[in-house]
Amino acid sequence: MPVFITLEGTEGVGKSTAMAYMQDYLAHHQIPFITTREPGGTPLAEKIRTLLLTKDVEPMSETTELLLMFAARAQHLAQVIKPALAAGKWVLCDRFTDATYAYQGGGRGLPMADIRQLEELVQGTLRPSLTLWLDAPVELGLSRAAARQQLDRFEQEKAVFFDRVRAVYQQRAEAESQRYRRIDASLALEEVQAQIKAVLGRFVAVRTL
Amino acid sequence: MPVFITLEGTEGVGKSTAMAYMQDYLAHHQIPFITTREPGGTPLAEKIRTLLLTKDVEPMSETTELLLMFAARAQHLAQVIKPALAAGKWVLCDRFTDATYAYQGGGRGLPMADIRQLEELVQGTLRPSLTLWLDAPVELGLSRAAARQQLDRFEQEKAVFFDRVRAVYQQRAEAESQRYRRIDASLALEEVQAQIKAVLGRFVAVRTL
Repeated sequence: MPVFITLEGTEGVGKSTAMAYMQDYLAHHQIPFITTREPGGTPLAEKIRTLLLTKDVEPMSETTELLLMFAARAQHLAQVIKPALAAGKWVLCDRFTDATYAYQGGGRGLPMADIRQLEELVQGTLRPSLTLWLDAPVELGLSRAAARQQLDRFEQEKAVFFDRVRAVYQQRAEAESQRYRRIDASLALEEVQAQIKAVLGRFVAVRTL
Repeated sequence: MPVFITLEGTEGVGKSTAMAYMQDYLAHHQIPFITTREPGGTPLAEKIRTLLLTKDVEPMSETTELLLMFAARAQHLAQVIKPALAAGKWVLCDRFTDATYAYQGGGRGLPMADIRQLEELVQGTLRPSLTLWLDAPVELGLSRAAARQQLDRFEQEKAVFFDRVRAVYQQRAEAESQRYRRIDASLALEEVQAQIKAVLGRFVAVRTL
């Protein structure tokens, strides 16, 4: 039974490294899968991503940002995620709707009810089967992200913004504990990977019976 | 008291010519105004317009199209329409949310309830004060539009699509007869302009008392 796994977390928590580790793990267990990311994942959705991440001549309205996120998501679902699941493939996705609740809801302060409405409009009843939340203190992640050469429109936000983002991830992890697994991303790489392996191992064991 | 006037209609009904006539009329009556268009009207919203009108390598999901329309609209409202109205200027807009009901609701068959939800999310209670609907038989408009060099993603649709678009304009003109004025666009230019002048004249007389 194909499953939809999402990876979440604020800047600099090691999502890319974790994603590579998860790919290796699934390949090793001969599970057919695709990897993808949000916002983006299709040529058109990547163009929307560029609009979202680039600082333009004009400030982007927060409602515009929210709607662009879901516009990209609708395209990604139609072109990539749903066809992959229908073809029996697992989907590993770097960020999904939890990020919208965290960044646009928590970070920007947009009403959660609006996000829920859009989630229903775009996804119907489709939700991730498993969400790995890489969690680390905001300052730790930001100091890692700052080492990168160019910061995008979100990475330029201040620590207080990411505190709000992290708080929403925390709330959602508690409210949806069935699918959420918190990974302590402040630990050394081997320990982070050991946690991911434990979560993924149990999940693979059940799903590939 | 500043007012928000929108111009609606299917392809080839003469919106550009009507817009130019309305500009002359307002300028002649020394009414401060701006002209703008949807989708678009700001640098970012025009980039979204380009995504909407260009045929890409992949088919655009209908939900993506709907959300991109409202993303552009949110930006347009925040950057252009609301500031203009707040500064006491009239706004003349080539297409607005009625077009979304007509094209995405009527043409594509998306649920009107979804469009109403997005309208409320993006506009709150803001609605046009006056909507001029240029109406002509679909075949007449399409034969005029076909004379243009390049057809965009919407103009490439078939007559049956525009029949559905026109039918929704008709329904909305009846349901919201307070603000809607149907202009018979199948007549000669002078007669079309005489109709616009009559509508606009009454409106200007009341609003500039």
